[in-house]
Amino acid sequence: MNTFKNKLYHIIFEADTKAGKLFDVVLIVAIIASVIVVMLDSVAELNAKYGQLFILLEIGFTILFTLEYFARIYISEHKLKYIFSFFGIVDFLSIFPTYFGFIFGTKSTALITIRTLRLLRVFRVLKLIGFISEASELKKALKASKRKILVFLLAVVSLVTVMGTLMYMIESVDSGFTSIPRSIYWAIVTLTTVGYGDIAPSTNLGQFIASIIMILGYAIIAVPTGIVSTEMKTLKENERNRNDMIVCKNCDKKTSEINANFCFNCGERL
Amino acid sequence: MNTFKNKLYHIIFEADTKAGKLFDVVLIVAIIASVIVVMLDSVAELNAKYGQLFILLEIGFTILFTLEYFARIYISEHKLKYIFSFFGIVDFLSIFPTYFGFIFGTKSTALITIRTLRLLRVFRVLKLIGFISEASELKKALKASKRKILVFLLAVVSLVTVMGTLMYMIESVDSGFTSIPRSIYWAIVTLTTVGYGDIAPSTNLGQFIASIIMILGYAIIAVPTGIVSTEMKTLKENERNRNDMIVCKNCDKKTSEINANFCFNCGERL
Amino acid sequence: MNTFKNKLYHIIFEADTKAGKLFDVVLIVAIIASVIVVMLDSVAELNAKYGQLFILLEIGFTILFTLEYFARIYISEHKLKYIFSFFGIVDFLSIFPTYFGFIFGTKSTALITIRTLRLLRVFRVLKLIGFISEASELKKALKASKRKILVFLLAVVSLVTVMGTLMYMIESVDSGFTSIPRSIYWAIVTLTTVGYGDIAPSTNLGQFIASIIMILGYAIIAVPTGIVSTEMKTLKENERNRNDMIVCKNCDKKTSEINANFCFNCGERL
Amino acid sequence: MNTFKNKLYHIIFEADTKAGKLFDVVLIVAIIASVIVVMLDSVAELNAKYGQLFILLEIGFTILFTLEYFARIYISEHKLKYIFSFFGIVDFLSIFPTYFGFIFGTKSTALITIRTLRLLRVFRVLKLIGFISEASELKKALKASKRKILVFLLAVVSLVTVMGTLMYMIESVDSGFTSIPRSIYWAIVTLTTVGYGDIAPSTNLGQFIASIIMILGYAIIAVPTGIVSTEMKTLKENERNRNDMIVCKNCDKKTSEINANFCFNCGERL
Repeated sequence: MNTFKNKLYHIIFEADTKAGKLFDVVLIVAIIASVIVVMLDSVAELNAKYGQLFILLEIGFTILFTLEYFARIYISEHKLKYIFSFFGIVDFLSIFPTYFGFIFGTKSTALITIRTLRLLRVFRVLKLIGFISEASELKKALKASKRKILVFLLAVVSLVTVMGTLMYMIESVDSGFTSIPRSIYWAIVTLTTVGYGDIAPSTNLGQFIASIIMILGYAIIAVPTGIVSTEMKTLKENERNRNDMIVCKNCDKKTSEINANFCFNCGERL
Repeated sequence: MNTFKNKLYHIIFEADTKAGKLFDVVLIVAIIASVIVVMLDSVAELNAKYGQLFILLEIGFTILFTLEYFARIYISEHKLKYIFSFFGIVDFLSIFPTYFGFIFGTKSTALITIRTLRLLRVFRVLKLIGFISEASELKKALKASKRKILVFLLAVVSLVTVMGTLMYMIESVDSGFTSIPRSIYWAIVTLTTVGYGDIAPSTNLGQFIASIIMILGYAIIAVPTGIVSTEMKTLKENERNRNDMIVCKNCDKKTSEINANFCFNCGERL
Repeated sequence: MNTFKNKLYHIIFEADTKAGKLFDVVLIVAIIASVIVVMLDSVAELNAKYGQLFILLEIGFTILFTLEYFARIYISEHKLKYIFSFFGIVDFLSIFPTYFGFIFGTKSTALITIRTLRLLRVFRVLKLIGFISEASELKKALKASKRKILVFLLAVVSLVTVMGTLMYMIESVDSGFTSIPRSIYWAIVTLTTVGYGDIAPSTNLGQFIASIIMILGYAIIAVPTGIVSTEMKTLKENERNRNDMIVCKNCDKKTSEINANFCFNCGERL
Repeated sequence: MNTFKNKLYHIIFEADTKAGKLFDVVLIVAIIASVIVVMLDSVAELNAKYGQLFILLEIGFTILFTLEYFARIYISEHKLKYIFSFFGIVDFLSIFPTYFGFIFGTKSTALITIRTLRLLRVFRVLKLIGFISEASELKKALKASKRKILVFLLAVVSLVTVMGTLMYMIESVDSGFTSIPRSIYWAIVTLTTVGYGDIAPSTNLGQFIASIIMILGYAIIAVPTGIVSTEMKTLKENERNRNDMIVCKNCDKKTSEINANFCFNCGERL
């Protein structure tokens, strides 16, 4: 029995064996297929035609994911820790809505939303296959620039609030500037260059101020890009420098001076 | 009495003591809450329902900010200097509209706009907590690229003016190109990729020229980003490099290893 | 006869001779002209007026391209290899729809679409003229950042799916959020800052969540730019640095001066 | 008389003297004011009210610019060279439409468009004040990346043509996809993230393909930014390296090896 548990562990948690790889591929396909079924089910025409099929498929996926969920609990050493971990909760939320829906007979859209969270489970599989180093590099760059981005966002929020209020004062209600929150919403839509056009200034002064916001937005978009680029470049250079360094045999210190004769730290001849 | 003034000074102007931190947190919460009240009050439905509550809250915030304003004047050595400083004026403007409104019984939107300027006071508190280094780094990068950005903006303004006039000539009035300023407004909306759609070319020639403006805008957006990225990277490198060269007294070689004890070239103790 | 084949080979596959250059220019002009004819033919008014002319021109271009196609087959050593190569298929597809249309008398839009693929043939000519080094540099930078961009796109797709489903739940059907796929379409339109405005949130909560997506999109747009910039800069630096280190045989010092005659350190002739 | 010509030369072509600076400021103000008058004149309401005033101002500006134009001809050594130089033509075009309009009594919009070209004359004045170094740096970076940007634009044009034709095939005429050129216009509007919304896909397949174009556009926008950033950074580094270099007194060659003892070129001790 222990061998079975062990085998299951290897299949589920590792991607080295053939069975482990197959399990990962099947899981990813099932996750994506189940999310697509949820999506298609929300289209009125398709629901009318294939509604029964979608329910059957949903039941199938739920049984599959339930089996997987219990298998994961079964092979975990610290079962409670798994259950209340991030992915443990995501796993539970990906099977819970179907059971809840059947028991209480509801078909609320809230349950549907929860179901699409299944997609997050794809990231766990990717972790195993080794895409994680790329993700962690991106994460490191974002982390290094976290505070700068925060200051930047704060400036953007302030700008948008003041500009939105100003436009609420200037523009007529007919153009869609019915309240300050809605005017701020417009300012965000404009500054981020989304520009739906559902709310748009119609007075001359309003259009003039809007033009200034747009050109500001154009200049401002350069800032986060600059921040992230700089951090990424710095990370990359540090990494490369670390590889090109000369290590002292005496004190293990590294130097980036490629022509060093002596260790800068202990004076040992290199 | 002097001790009281001193204590007050520490609470308001420093963030080291417990009382000082508490004061900062309360102030930020009060500022943000008061701005949110101003916003919600502008929504017609909420105003109808909770109008009375909003007025009471507004009075409460105003009293709080008035007390703070006079406390700041009281503890300032150069009282007039504070009153006419940037934040002194912002502080005054954040309490003035409420009193003015009550006295003259007006409820103009201009007064509301002034009230949201309170948000700027959040930046003063951030100054104390130490977010200022990030902001100053951003500011330095923007300052270093100021002239280049100015030249860039001038080119954008010229481009937009010529393109706008051209479109006014080509496009019909029915599509929204009713005057040159409005056509320039359209050119800005297009070049910055906001694209409301309230004014859009309908003739073939107009759409052709608009396409060129868009692709130009696509290429042009690269320029400010390039400017800011380059300045940021240069600042970062300068910071690391410039001060950090150690010269060996024996052989005159320079090294960028700031922790060097020995010369990397001749092994001399530094 | 062999000389004729040889001469033809030089004209078609090389750009050194006068005839070769002329052939390339004529080909590019013919390709672009034929695509423009296809385009103009789709405009109803122009089709009504100049339809006959367009058909004549199309026949002319097709004969020209057919001659070229058979000439290429004729001079190829491995004829089948050419026919089933990428450009072989593109060449065939650029003449096939006209013949197919004449034989079966159909004028379907699918045939028109295939015809515009002719444009891809311009890239073959560019290959000869030497624009390829620029393209390959861009391609290298994109290749180096391939995995990071993939992780990034995956994150974007997940974000868009969850946000789209959320908006489907929150927003009313009247605003255009009729199904999850359509809501995801809206989320993509918003996150990429395209913002058509055909679907736009109308409830307060919906506009609030949309604002968050937009500001996220604003921050997220920095990531691919950062990735590509960093890879490009790294490629450029590597190119300059790696091969260009000269080692002195006397003192073992390395220099990056590629034109060095003497060692910068000991003065030894290199 | 010669002194007068000389004095005039200094006033017009130099910005060192007080009179020269004053002349530059007056000229810039006059140029901008005259362009603003042209703009405001195109607004129907303002034209009805202040039309007479605008005509008087326009006559005033034209007389001023005519005087300046003849003064420039007068002080030029090579009069014909000036007249047919870029700025000579711009100068002529900024006075010509008013005279032409008065003589032939026309008020065509084409004449108005030519008038706004006056704005280009601001760049000449900027040249004198020294903003030119910033502009030339931007120009150098753009020049260095010219070929790469060309390849990039070509790829964008091809993508947009194929995608536009594809959408013409898929989407219905009712959504605005009435011809291939218009569908390509839509593809450009989408890829550049402008997104007017005057033409927008309404079928499921169309929205799916549009989503792909948008995400492509999102990734593609990174490329020109990367190109320009990289070139700018490289230019800046080269400039800095050139300043930090050690010059050999014997052969005048420069090296970037900060620790050099001998010239890498002639072996001279430094």
